[in-house]
Amino acid sequence: MARNTQVAADAAAPPITQILARYVATHPSKGWSDAVDHEGLRTFLNWVGCAVGAARHEAARAALAAVRMLEPAPQSTILGTSEKVDMASAALVNGITSHTFDFDDTHLRTVIHPAGPVASALLALAEVTGASGRALLDALVIGVDVECRIGNMMYPDHYDRGWHITGSTGVLGAAAACARLLGLDERHTAWALGIAASQPIGMREQFGTMTKPFHPGAAARAGLTSALLAKHGFTASAKALEAPRGYAQVVSTKCDWSEVTGELGERFEISFNTYKPFACGIVIHPTIDAATRLRAEGVQPADVERVELRVHPLVLELTGRKEPQDGLQGKFSVYQGFALGLVFGRAGESEYTDAIVRREDIVALRRKVQASADAAIDEAAADVTVRLRDGTRKHVFVEHAIGSLARPMSDADLEAKFHALAEPVIGAKRAQALVESCWNLARAGDVRALCEGARA
Amino acid sequence: MARNTQVAADAAAPPITQILARYVATHPSKGWSDAVDHEGLRTFLNWVGCAVGAARHEAARAALAAVRMLEPAPQSTILGTSEKVDMASAALVNGITSHTFDFDDTHLRTVIHPAGPVASALLALAEVTGASGRALLDALVIGVDVECRIGNMMYPDHYDRGWHITGSTGVLGAAAACARLLGLDERHTAWALGIAASQPIGMREQFGTMTKPFHPGAAARAGLTSALLAKHGFTASAKALEAPRGYAQVVSTKCDWSEVTGELGERFEISFNTYKPFACGIVIHPTIDAATRLRAEGVQPADVERVELRVHPLVLELTGRKEPQDGLQGKFSVYQGFALGLVFGRAGESEYTDAIVRREDIVALRRKVQASADAAIDEAAADVTVRLRDGTRKHVFVEHAIGSLARPMSDADLEAKFHALAEPVIGAKRAQALVESCWNLARAGDVRALCEGARA
Repeated sequence: MARNTQVAADAAAPPITQILARYVATHPSKGWSDAVDHEGLRTFLNWVGCAVGAARHEAARAALAAVRMLEPAPQSTILGTSEKVDMASAALVNGITSHTFDFDDTHLRTVIHPAGPVASALLALAEVTGASGRALLDALVIGVDVECRIGNMMYPDHYDRGWHITGSTGVLGAAAACARLLGLDERHTAWALGIAASQPIGMREQFGTMTKPFHPGAAARAGLTSALLAKHGFTASAKALEAPRGYAQVVSTKCDWSEVTGELGERFEISFNTYKPFACGIVIHPTIDAATRLRAEGVQPADVERVELRVHPLVLELTGRKEPQDGLQGKFSVYQGFALGLVFGRAGESEYTDAIVRREDIVALRRKVQASADAAIDEAAADVTVRLRDGTRKHVFVEHAIGSLARPMSDADLEAKFHALAEPVIGAKRAQALVESCWNLARAGDVRALCEGARA
Repeated sequence: MARNTQVAADAAAPPITQILARYVATHPSKGWSDAVDHEGLRTFLNWVGCAVGAARHEAARAALAAVRMLEPAPQSTILGTSEKVDMASAALVNGITSHTFDFDDTHLRTVIHPAGPVASALLALAEVTGASGRALLDALVIGVDVECRIGNMMYPDHYDRGWHITGSTGVLGAAAACARLLGLDERHTAWALGIAASQPIGMREQFGTMTKPFHPGAAARAGLTSALLAKHGFTASAKALEAPRGYAQVVSTKCDWSEVTGELGERFEISFNTYKPFACGIVIHPTIDAATRLRAEGVQPADVERVELRVHPLVLELTGRKEPQDGLQGKFSVYQGFALGLVFGRAGESEYTDAIVRREDIVALRRKVQASADAAIDEAAADVTVRLRDGTRKHVFVEHAIGSLARPMSDADLEAKFHALAEPVIGAKRAQALVESCWNLARAGDVRALCEGARA
């Protein structure tokens, strides 16, 4: 993450999204000649004939068998709600929610957020098939491995080009995981990967909109569908990933195949997964971590006169917003992050509210932070000096923030984070039971009780 | 189409699709250390917490409202069957079937097959909303216009890069069409286009597999879903198409914006739609056309001694298969195409069977064809000289084949094609009624009767 590679791009492009939206929304009915209208009818007639004509083809049979597996709805739980929907939609929505707070997990080398696409597809499928917890965990490890290896193969070129790598590789991870859970053989698994390879999802332009978390959700749905199709005999190229006009060479200039093949089955990329302790961009984490340490040392916000913060230039470029106006903007302010860390000792989703961003003491404290860019400081580090009213000077240097590979969150940290997220939605008691269901996953006969326990 | 631009690609890539498929399908359960397994549990626990925690977020509400529109299944008809499924799945399957025979329609300038993504999404949606036929036709014209304008903007670079342009632009056409049919305003339409922009579908490596027709189906489903999400307030970047890390600049090196904006609302790309008279690659069409003309002039297959065929070199490169073994291979044989044209006077899906490819008289006739490449002959033309046993010599030069823009299929031709496709599936009487329903589309109060009439 946190790269600033320039793309050779036309930044002066006309606003064609808006231009087309206006055209689509406002052009009058039959606002064209009779000839155009008749061509519309010819297009439609020809299309109906083609669709009817192929209705008994083996591809149609395979596709229909696959979509029949989505019925009858409701099949699968949307976590944290009382809803069940068809499993493809459940995969979509759970993939969206798990990434909505930008608070999930990170494979740091590629900035893939691995669980969203893979776990969302798997749990929805497992709830329908009655797969064991062990089978789900196997498929999760393998799916994340496929996803992150594909990411390693293409990073950073693919990401720099503009792809949101979580969605574009996630669809392959989800397809691999679902193929595994369905027990497909090699041939059918290759088809599942192949169908998924035709559906890379996600552009970085969407960051800051709901379509960012849509990416892992859409990847989960597409990967699940790919596996269902393959199971029923829907074919794809057996070279879909590596062929000259296949996935990798179409979406990336860098294709380091050895990242896929090296130590396959021996090294598992899930080992390098990390979990966000703070609900904001990862470059702010060292600063928040420093603030929580100062708080633990007894520094009181009211005593602070001035804060000198030295960080890598990129930190200010990405999160240099001095006067955030709402919770979302607060996530892009290293100043706000410091204030939250010192006042609350944490910066979860509950701390990134509009009300807290506007609180007088928070505003006053973040204005005392003087941040300076220093290229000598690593992106993953922060150097903080606090001057107190009594003249005392406190210094903290964070080399690796909590949540990094060097200082991973403990299981207890993860549980605390879980409770903070889940208790407002399903209550403390159910949250505790759900934590235990997760830890006991590998021993569960099936995952239905876990899904039931995740309902509101 | 029919370009042969080389891609700068690594043709010596290892078979990673197969390697990964084997790994996914055969790696043993818990074939890793306890530490890896525990990381799997941490990944899962953290994901569940994030998903539960965001279950009440406005993005979750919007997504759930959208997927609720897919229920209760069954909602929408799969044409030519007795099945109804949820509308997203109907869009997927009808998109697949309409392109399965490679017999649908072609926007020649971009080789987009426009109807598949757009009509498949629209009809499934209209069956649920009860939209009028007029509204559907409006949305079809506009959706095809958006799709083909985006294609014009990026062709040929985007296609040469390896994208199957029908899927990659079709998702935008489908989203535009569905947004129109749902009556979304400009703001929501821009979101629909934006969500769709994150889902370009289709790689050319899939040609020859079922995943080729999957592309328009998946584009239909993705475009429809994008419009449903936007309707319920799911946001996307308002610059999703044109931004430096948005759709166009990520998937194409050529971005000629004026192709989108020029004469918008005045020139309609559906005017340039063409319909395939023959169920095979378009470069064979002039040859088949020549053969049907010779047949009309009374040439009998049994009298033929030798056929001299001169075509553009590309025709032999793409369709030079001399001894096809089955129906599908027959579609890639200009020799087989000539034989079908002379024997049957047509080359529809019914003529591309395994049995006909192996018929003795057909084999004998196609072996009499001597094809030579001549760069002086246009790709869209064919020069045929037949020498008969009695010494007679017949010559036909086809400058533009039937089905081209210069010699479009008549409405009667389209009807005949429709009957040949639909009668084996739904019978002659229902096929005739369905033809009439299509021609009367703009006067239909809603499309449900048409859908009912398309059932087997």
